[in-house]
Amino acid sequence: MSTTPLLLQALAGTEVSRPPVWMMRQAGRHLPEYMELREKYDFFTRVETPELAAEITLQPMRRYEPDAAIIFSDILVIPKALGMEVQLIPGKGPVLPHPIKSLQDVLALQRDGVADRLQHVYDALRLVRAELSPDQTLIGFAGAPWTILCYMVEGHGSKTFSEAKKFCYNQPQAAELLLNVITEATIAYCKLQIEAGAQVIQVFDSWSGLLSPEDFENYAQPYLLRISDAISEIVPVILYPKGSWYALSKFRYSSCAALGVDWTLKPQVARDLIGKELTIQGNLDPSILLTDPETVHRKTTDMIKQFGTQRYIANLGHGISPDVPPVNAKAFFDAVKSYQPS
Amino acid sequence: MSTTPLLLQALAGTEVSRPPVWMMRQAGRHLPEYMELREKYDFFTRVETPELAAEITLQPMRRYEPDAAIIFSDILVIPKALGMEVQLIPGKGPVLPHPIKSLQDVLALQRDGVADRLQHVYDALRLVRAELSPDQTLIGFAGAPWTILCYMVEGHGSKTFSEAKKFCYNQPQAAELLLNVITEATIAYCKLQIEAGAQVIQVFDSWSGLLSPEDFENYAQPYLLRISDAISEIVPVILYPKGSWYALSKFRYSSCAALGVDWTLKPQVARDLIGKELTIQGNLDPSILLTDPETVHRKTTDMIKQFGTQRYIANLGHGISPDVPPVNAKAFFDAVKSYQPS
Repeated sequence: MSTTPLLLQALAGTEVSRPPVWMMRQAGRHLPEYMELREKYDFFTRVETPELAAEITLQPMRRYEPDAAIIFSDILVIPKALGMEVQLIPGKGPVLPHPIKSLQDVLALQRDGVADRLQHVYDALRLVRAELSPDQTLIGFAGAPWTILCYMVEGHGSKTFSEAKKFCYNQPQAAELLLNVITEATIAYCKLQIEAGAQVIQVFDSWSGLLSPEDFENYAQPYLLRISDAISEIVPVILYPKGSWYALSKFRYSSCAALGVDWTLKPQVARDLIGKELTIQGNLDPSILLTDPETVHRKTTDMIKQFGTQRYIANLGHGISPDVPPVNAKAFFDAVKSYQPS
Repeated sequence: MSTTPLLLQALAGTEVSRPPVWMMRQAGRHLPEYMELREKYDFFTRVETPELAAEITLQPMRRYEPDAAIIFSDILVIPKALGMEVQLIPGKGPVLPHPIKSLQDVLALQRDGVADRLQHVYDALRLVRAELSPDQTLIGFAGAPWTILCYMVEGHGSKTFSEAKKFCYNQPQAAELLLNVITEATIAYCKLQIEAGAQVIQVFDSWSGLLSPEDFENYAQPYLLRISDAISEIVPVILYPKGSWYALSKFRYSSCAALGVDWTLKPQVARDLIGKELTIQGNLDPSILLTDPETVHRKTTDMIKQFGTQRYIANLGHGISPDVPPVNAKAFFDAVKSYQPS
């Protein structure tokens, strides 16, 4: 029997007895033990104190024993390390009070040594790795350049990120430079996460689904591929271009090991678009976790039945929401771990 | 030459010299003449005063001369007519302070004569119709039952509408009854809009894209089809299940005359999914209107080239945003009206 952890087996396409399982945002607000820490420390204290970030990362590992831990951090550490002010206001989301408006603003970013300013993430990864068992995989992550640009230009969350698009359309040179700056920073950052113990890198393109297929080719795809090409030489990469069903087939023969998909794709449709060469990760609607343990178990089992057990990672189609009872989250993990092909 | 208005020709599949054009949310905040009225009258005064609603409906007709007017109103007039309190708070969106929580709440809705309580809409339609020329089509509209349920249960806008989904999952009987109540009210409402002069009905399912394909089949599709079947006997129906690319093919042989699509679908993909039996409406990314008139003209012309001129209605893929300069919106209309197949 292989001693390679289950998640790495699934990413490599090795035959497995059941799919590995983890959950996007498994460390966070749905856990009472997290809420206790949240009352004592503000968001960036939690992210930037390695002992706190490590403790939070490990909380769901103790409660659910998933196959992987994902480091507790935030995609906006990159804009912050590039010298931008980032605030996280509870109930309001992220705010960057001085967003990028021009080429001058892009040129003023502090590109030199950007990844070195994220030492707290590497320290947290080392602390977590020391606590995990050999069969548990440690996942590092970063935001995709398009999604990071969205926040850096818009300055806050948005349904449309039309300011970000306007910037790309009307200041193409500045946009290209900004995407390149973010891409280079992200590659350096992921490499240092790997040195610190990350065995897989997931890249979240949370807002790629707002782009037309043509704009995806301009503003998302090349940068996702550059990160994937650079990082896949070292560890497997999971790309998650949320909502961009129309672009999945473009990654079919790329360097990434897996693609994340949301719940608007039926498993067979996802497989048809992605092919058998890549592993698929997803895709239960997180709202299902608002029902009851029996329903969660049934829906999760049904999902695995449709995806099949090979080249597949069981996950949600988006991060778990804060109002999910842990007993329902547990039912999700248990359903995957006890799965028996019928 | 036919004297049928261009929009009705395109909906009937008659051969046309160019595609008809209108714009979702063409009456509204991007127009300075609207903003003047907005300073004087609050939202529901504007919606519920026929003279104001008619004036607002006609503002873009004077400025742009599109092929159709869409009555200025709101999808939430239905919950309001059913007896719920609806507030529209500028900058915050709609708030229903007493959302539906139970079967009791659904049973307490004032179903009797609900459509009769929307006389102000019919009066506005009559006023508008009297001002339009015979070649301009008047469009009435309603929200789709799933989208209306979202607001009635969640009580406000949401990125996920997870409360609405939770209600559907955990109280299926109440959800089914609520969807039926909304469907019946909507059919009666649309019929009275038609009596008052609406020549086309568009049904907006703004949040259907949050549903998995399976949930779409449960909570959206049957109600869209019931409305379409009832209304299509009288006038053509345009269904716009925003984001639900995965469900478009299900309407291919349905009673509706057209499907609206957003900008994540390439024209050829939309045509492949929908077939040649139906008219397609869409799908320029509204953010393109934040560029300049030349870019808007080029992108619009390119879009028509891809969709072709037949069985097609030029429109945006979503409502125009408030920050669009009218000169750019005008470039969109002009590009369609001056289109010459090359």
